[in-house]
Amino acid sequence: MATLVMQSMGCDVAALNTVHFSNHTGYQQFKGTRATAEEIRNLYEGLCMNNLTDFDVMLSGYAPSAAAVEAVGSIGIDLQRKSADRSGSFFWVLDPVMGDQGRLYVNDDVVPAYKNIIQHADLILPNQFEAEVLSGIQITSLETLAKAITVIHETYKVPHVIITSVQLSKLLPSPENPSPNSTQNLLTIIGSTTLSTGKPRLFRVDVPAIDCFFSGTGDMFAALTVARLREAVFADSDKNLRNTKSWVSADDVKPTDLPLAKATERVLASMHNVLERTIEARDAELVATAAAAAAGAEGNEEELKKKEHLRRTKAAEIRLVRNVRFLREPTVEFKAKEWEGEY
Amino acid sequence: MATLVMQSMGCDVAALNTVHFSNHTGYQQFKGTRATAEEIRNLYEGLCMNNLTDFDVMLSGYAPSAAAVEAVGSIGIDLQRKSADRSGSFFWVLDPVMGDQGRLYVNDDVVPAYKNIIQHADLILPNQFEAEVLSGIQITSLETLAKAITVIHETYKVPHVIITSVQLSKLLPSPENPSPNSTQNLLTIIGSTTLSTGKPRLFRVDVPAIDCFFSGTGDMFAALTVARLREAVFADSDKNLRNTKSWVSADDVKPTDLPLAKATERVLASMHNVLERTIEARDAELVATAAAAAAGAEGNEEELKKKEHLRRTKAAEIRLVRNVRFLREPTVEFKAKEWEGEY
Repeated sequence: MATLVMQSMGCDVAALNTVHFSNHTGYQQFKGTRATAEEIRNLYEGLCMNNLTDFDVMLSGYAPSAAAVEAVGSIGIDLQRKSADRSGSFFWVLDPVMGDQGRLYVNDDVVPAYKNIIQHADLILPNQFEAEVLSGIQITSLETLAKAITVIHETYKVPHVIITSVQLSKLLPSPENPSPNSTQNLLTIIGSTTLSTGKPRLFRVDVPAIDCFFSGTGDMFAALTVARLREAVFADSDKNLRNTKSWVSADDVKPTDLPLAKATERVLASMHNVLERTIEARDAELVATAAAAAAGAEGNEEELKKKEHLRRTKAAEIRLVRNVRFLREPTVEFKAKEWEGEY
Repeated sequence: MATLVMQSMGCDVAALNTVHFSNHTGYQQFKGTRATAEEIRNLYEGLCMNNLTDFDVMLSGYAPSAAAVEAVGSIGIDLQRKSADRSGSFFWVLDPVMGDQGRLYVNDDVVPAYKNIIQHADLILPNQFEAEVLSGIQITSLETLAKAITVIHETYKVPHVIITSVQLSKLLPSPENPSPNSTQNLLTIIGSTTLSTGKPRLFRVDVPAIDCFFSGTGDMFAALTVARLREAVFADSDKNLRNTKSWVSADDVKPTDLPLAKATERVLASMHNVLERTIEARDAELVATAAAAAAGAEGNEEELKKKEHLRRTKAAEIRLVRNVRFLREPTVEFKAKEWEGEY
């Protein structure tokens, strides 16, 4: 997912696969292999010895163990060291993949491994649960959400943060937000680029939630962000920004004018287009396979349930290949808004 | 290479990586891992248990051992078995990657492993050397070239063959071909779809040779062929062809009207566009990096030679990502011609 999205956006990608599975884990069963920390270090060594480390951006995602997270971390740190005399020439986007919906799906020791390396990243992309894990703050309101981002900036000195999915409608009502998103089921994406004081500079983008579980949306978001953030920084009126460490905008730049905000707007537009088309194709596939599924419905209740789960999971595979045009040219537009609450 | 090319042509790809290397082997040094036969079988088992084996086409390429070739072969055979009651619904393109330029670059036992599975494939894509290995005929003239294809059809009962690169200018002159390609350095691609007699039906396409070693052209050719052959079969005036086993055209179809010939024309056009642009970019990169290379020229003669090799190899990396539009819409046109000699 991440590789094809970045390639479709014009990036030359050196993919270091941390796992090689037969299928995504949403199917609930899979076969395949996990890269060891040594294999990860070894592949990087191969790149080094062939002078193939002139990367502009590194995107790190799921790693299958704490040792693998450390190995990926050491690559990011080494690439930063190599580019230290050319500010802004290397940027590390770190997706701290640890869990979702209140549940860790990695070993417990992966959490401290991430906590150790995030200080070196330029942008992190936790979901709501991962932001809670990293900040130690349970997000139950707009206030606690802002507090979590503040703590993440402070604790890890990471200049950019996007919390990739917050269902504000599920947050408790508050005086400032008595009835969050009452009219429509919205998903809110919150981002921040730090001020020179270390305090956050918050924006939000609301998008219509699509009621389906897709596997790979996190990687799609991260990969699009790599391409769009770089594009926004290079298009920025501050021509010096691209040569500024971690691409941190000057303090007088408003939250909604941040390259991070501009990038997030475009990322979400592309995702909305692709997921809309995926839902259409999913519905058509479920209809088309219904008869065969009913005809082949043999086995006990448990087996039938499993077959149906596999059919539904396959039908919901993100339709990327035939919709790549929407990555480059989305047809919808979302706008970043100022954060309304206090922080 | 193969995955991105097929994806860019609109194919949903399940990639089963038989190796995971830091870089291509043209750099002459690399790190990484090779999949074992068990790992390959295991990944396929994962696909089977999740009902994810409804493939239209399988493309098999480099496998790192004889056992790995066998494992890949057993996947192709199983997919054929699964689709046996729906003629033409599954097609196996096999690239018998064994060597080039007169030299095997796999273990000796890989050769018999390929010889055992090719009978199950629908199309094979040997280069000149691999065609010699498979046929046991040394290709030194147009006659021996035609003979090699005849033997391959006969021996392996494989209905479609393309020999992906023959430098006829390097073949010995013959009475029919006293001065082959004297005016320009041409590369000739020879293809054949078998007649019902088992005899070949030969066509050729000549393209200007580009004087540079590129790594990945074999995979690009194979991946483009997957997409273009299917397209040509579906566009064929014989609407029954797509439901015919192995997509073998009726005997009255002329060599140059074969879907295989139509596909080859388009494949070569796309490749020519991409490689032309690669050469331009390579030349620009060599100029751009020359000063830094000279400034950093430390070490003994051997070290300097190696550095220069790495610089040149990197500069010649195929520029695919930014030229994918030429895969779908090439701007040049090559035409298949009838085979002039006897066979």
